[in-house]
Amino acid sequence: MATSTWLSPCLLNERSIINCYTGLVCNYSSLFEKQNFCTKPISASAGVKLIRNGIRCSTLEIESTPSFSIGKKFQLDDVIEAQQFDREILSAIFEVAREMEKIEKNSPGSQILKGYLMATLFYEPSTRTRLSFESAMKRLGGEVLTTENAREFSSAAKGETLEDTIRTVEGYSDIIVMRHFESGAARRAAVTASIPIINAGDGPGQHPTQALLDVYTIDREIGKLDSIRVALVGDLANGRTVRSLAYLLAKYQDVTIYFVSPDVDDIKDYLTSKGVKWEESADLMEVASKCDVVYQTRIQRERFGERIDLYEEARGKYIVDREVLNVMQKHAVVMHPLPRLDEITVDVDADPRAAYFRQAKNGLYIRMTLLKLLLVGW
Amino acid sequence: MATSTWLSPCLLNERSIINCYTGLVCNYSSLFEKQNFCTKPISASAGVKLIRNGIRCSTLEIESTPSFSIGKKFQLDDVIEAQQFDREILSAIFEVAREMEKIEKNSPGSQILKGYLMATLFYEPSTRTRLSFESAMKRLGGEVLTTENAREFSSAAKGETLEDTIRTVEGYSDIIVMRHFESGAARRAAVTASIPIINAGDGPGQHPTQALLDVYTIDREIGKLDSIRVALVGDLANGRTVRSLAYLLAKYQDVTIYFVSPDVDDIKDYLTSKGVKWEESADLMEVASKCDVVYQTRIQRERFGERIDLYEEARGKYIVDREVLNVMQKHAVVMHPLPRLDEITVDVDADPRAAYFRQAKNGLYIRMTLLKLLLVGW
Amino acid sequence: MATSTWLSPCLLNERSIINCYTGLVCNYSSLFEKQNFCTKPISASAGVKLIRNGIRCSTLEIESTPSFSIGKKFQLDDVIEAQQFDREILSAIFEVAREMEKIEKNSPGSQILKGYLMATLFYEPSTRTRLSFESAMKRLGGEVLTTENAREFSSAAKGETLEDTIRTVEGYSDIIVMRHFESGAARRAAVTASIPIINAGDGPGQHPTQALLDVYTIDREIGKLDSIRVALVGDLANGRTVRSLAYLLAKYQDVTIYFVSPDVDDIKDYLTSKGVKWEESADLMEVASKCDVVYQTRIQRERFGERIDLYEEARGKYIVDREVLNVMQKHAVVMHPLPRLDEITVDVDADPRAAYFRQAKNGLYIRMTLLKLLLVGW
Repeated sequence: MATSTWLSPCLLNERSIINCYTGLVCNYSSLFEKQNFCTKPISASAGVKLIRNGIRCSTLEIESTPSFSIGKKFQLDDVIEAQQFDREILSAIFEVAREMEKIEKNSPGSQILKGYLMATLFYEPSTRTRLSFESAMKRLGGEVLTTENAREFSSAAKGETLEDTIRTVEGYSDIIVMRHFESGAARRAAVTASIPIINAGDGPGQHPTQALLDVYTIDREIGKLDSIRVALVGDLANGRTVRSLAYLLAKYQDVTIYFVSPDVDDIKDYLTSKGVKWEESADLMEVASKCDVVYQTRIQRERFGERIDLYEEARGKYIVDREVLNVMQKHAVVMHPLPRLDEITVDVDADPRAAYFRQAKNGLYIRMTLLKLLLVGW
Repeated sequence: MATSTWLSPCLLNERSIINCYTGLVCNYSSLFEKQNFCTKPISASAGVKLIRNGIRCSTLEIESTPSFSIGKKFQLDDVIEAQQFDREILSAIFEVAREMEKIEKNSPGSQILKGYLMATLFYEPSTRTRLSFESAMKRLGGEVLTTENAREFSSAAKGETLEDTIRTVEGYSDIIVMRHFESGAARRAAVTASIPIINAGDGPGQHPTQALLDVYTIDREIGKLDSIRVALVGDLANGRTVRSLAYLLAKYQDVTIYFVSPDVDDIKDYLTSKGVKWEESADLMEVASKCDVVYQTRIQRERFGERIDLYEEARGKYIVDREVLNVMQKHAVVMHPLPRLDEITVDVDADPRAAYFRQAKNGLYIRMTLLKLLLVGW
Repeated sequence: MATSTWLSPCLLNERSIINCYTGLVCNYSSLFEKQNFCTKPISASAGVKLIRNGIRCSTLEIESTPSFSIGKKFQLDDVIEAQQFDREILSAIFEVAREMEKIEKNSPGSQILKGYLMATLFYEPSTRTRLSFESAMKRLGGEVLTTENAREFSSAAKGETLEDTIRTVEGYSDIIVMRHFESGAARRAAVTASIPIINAGDGPGQHPTQALLDVYTIDREIGKLDSIRVALVGDLANGRTVRSLAYLLAKYQDVTIYFVSPDVDDIKDYLTSKGVKWEESADLMEVASKCDVVYQTRIQRERFGERIDLYEEARGKYIVDREVLNVMQKHAVVMHPLPRLDEITVDVDADPRAAYFRQAKNGLYIRMTLLKLLLVGW
């Protein structure tokens, strides 16, 4: 689905209409002809599809401002990058995520997404992210089509374009979760597809659901997002995770970011332009003692090539261990996008401030939320 | 399941009986003992299974002619090759496929195949075909067991025979969709299995569901199958897709096939023997201007080996582009089995006569249809 | 889940509580506050989780002895090795397995495990075992997350520990079925996880569900487990299958085991210590003529390395063919864990005493049973 259709007159997709027809508004259904029933905005592409199927949609009411009320359409057609989210929508998303926590814990088989089919199109493997999305879909009663290694196995190997693959797969599913090795691939897919696309990481580009779960975790663990101090530790130059997180933190008031890492100039420029305070430091202990969040990342071996010696040196430099824990405040937390190697020692795990496995679990709730919002709305 | 059990006295499988018992004919259920209830033909193997389970089946009525009435058993036990289908059965299948279009578009979760389990046993990868079958099963409420790369991963690597694998997998599922690298493998599987087998391509052999969706697409797009002119363009010598399609088109009246391609002698002989008109031509523009369907195929790089130069030459020869579109008739369509490389230029995609993505979608409806027919009948 | 929590006060997991709340005991539900409702033992870890989620569980009744009554908790938190099972529990498990046979044959879609999610975490491929577990879960209405090749694809390749992977995956699922290349891996996973772990084979270690299905097959085919004579034929030194089977057979009275194979000293010592009679023999015909069960195994080529000549010699030595069948008793059976190569000739398949495909099917029933017992209890 194209990413900027908010102003188009009609934003519901076909299935959602059915849903609203049989669901929330069924009390009124006898009063309307089916073709008059679309009282909410529908996207241009969905509109075309409706007309093709012989159902004409006469829009009765066009909303001028987005709404977070139950049953209303989600403001986004696709989830492609962290920049799509503002404070208001983040807050509303986190409220739904709390509901999802309850659903996952209490209900043996929610049916919110019953009848919906998600395709996971992974051009590079990421078992963790894939399982998280597939679990999210199934926890809500939806179904999944899996491609664990689309790059090697699919027609991509025969030279098919991404656009052609998307046009085929959108015929088999209701939403596509895509991971790709090329920056910008998710956006290309979204422009092509008439169903929602979720970017589950596109090369060095973005990984917006990771950023959302990171911010959600800070909110859950610290209780606020304004006036916090966050240390970003490790190998940040190539870290799309940290990059997306910094973009989102810039939405909040009085956030200070401490970079305990080599150069990450482009993020710093961005933060400066947004009025976010940031500092650089080589002293992990000092930073850890004053921050609410110590966000540790993995040193990526891949970027050191043959220079194993430099890799080993970088690895050893900023390790979160019991000593770091000892200087951290009582309410502060350690986060990590996982997988971790030894940049956090295992003896940290037992400390209640080790938030990284709770953070991974929050990924489930955020993904449940996005799937629900994109497929059936608020 | 063996492919020729139509004359056997009893053709329903065990699960279908349960289905009919609790389903369509439940009004009568109190009048019958369960063991007297099998009023429809049951396959020999299913019969044996029934007796093994201690349920005796006394056939009350044996039908002498096939029937397409709702609730009746499907005429085929397996789908192995295009030759199994005649005009009458194709027409009945297409009618069900139209129903499937409606189900897919309107119903958020059909339950027609609820409780049924399909195993996809793919000895060579084909993401597109696999996803299409899995989507079809799930759109009808069924479940799926996936083997994305049976050749490399399974016990086949340890030297197990196909027959042994089938005997194991049939214990875990209700229907097997199989892709194999050897011609004839699907037939061997069908002879072994006591559950239905669908051939999703066996090496240079057959790919019958592709042929069915091609013919269905022509019927949907052109509105008829008699008296049509079809151009088969590209690399037809190794094309099992085109071969199977030509076999099916031979069932219809007054069809003319134009081969715009190198030699495909064996198909031509077959068509001649069936009284189908065919012509050869090297002039794509001339053929395109008079045909209802321009069926383009991919030049398969694999067959040129080291001779990249010959491959590039062949690729460039017959390309469908805007120029070809310009000479085509208004009602005519361009088809392609996908994936395409550059044998159709992307500027063709926007033209309403570009039918190839609709054709891919029709694959879903045809596969929904076959799964439904093989598992629960008409 | 830790393996020895039977003595902990409270053994139900969170989801089971919900289940019992809405299910069996719903008559009483209005009489109790939700937090008072846990009337059955709950595991320590689940208890911790409950408190974390803000639900306090006041145990009303603590059982001093295990019970096999319907609705009671299963005695095991995980299935890690054959030694966990005694005669009494085996007998109770086999009774449930018989129920599972009925469910699989008659019911088009059991809902016993509806809302439960199983993750298959396979660090080495085993299509047969994976499909069997996934079929079992789906036949009971549960859902599945699949990792066909966790070793190559997952974060394990980046150096993540098994423990970290388990901590992540347990957040996405309700039970983990794990296959690993290292002996002891399943136990490490069980110690880490707060949800049940089933060992689907850990390297040269154990494969307990195979052992259970083997014993269940003997019980189903021969009608008893006491006073039987079992020939274990083939390459037993590296055979974890046969090793686990021997451990289980030692639980029964008056069992005699005949080893037709090279040295398997450690099993023999164990059997001697348990008072099980065993003999060694090189004469397959003589042994076959007096046994109830001829259990044939595959000669594993891997262990012969470069010495193909020795492999071929070993392969040819003990083959079960029509000649062996001819000397076997009428009620006796041939078993094999599959896949087989030529250690049983295909002309044996048609004989009713060839039990190996029925044995594979029994794997489905045993796995359905274990999933049911671990997730919802007796």
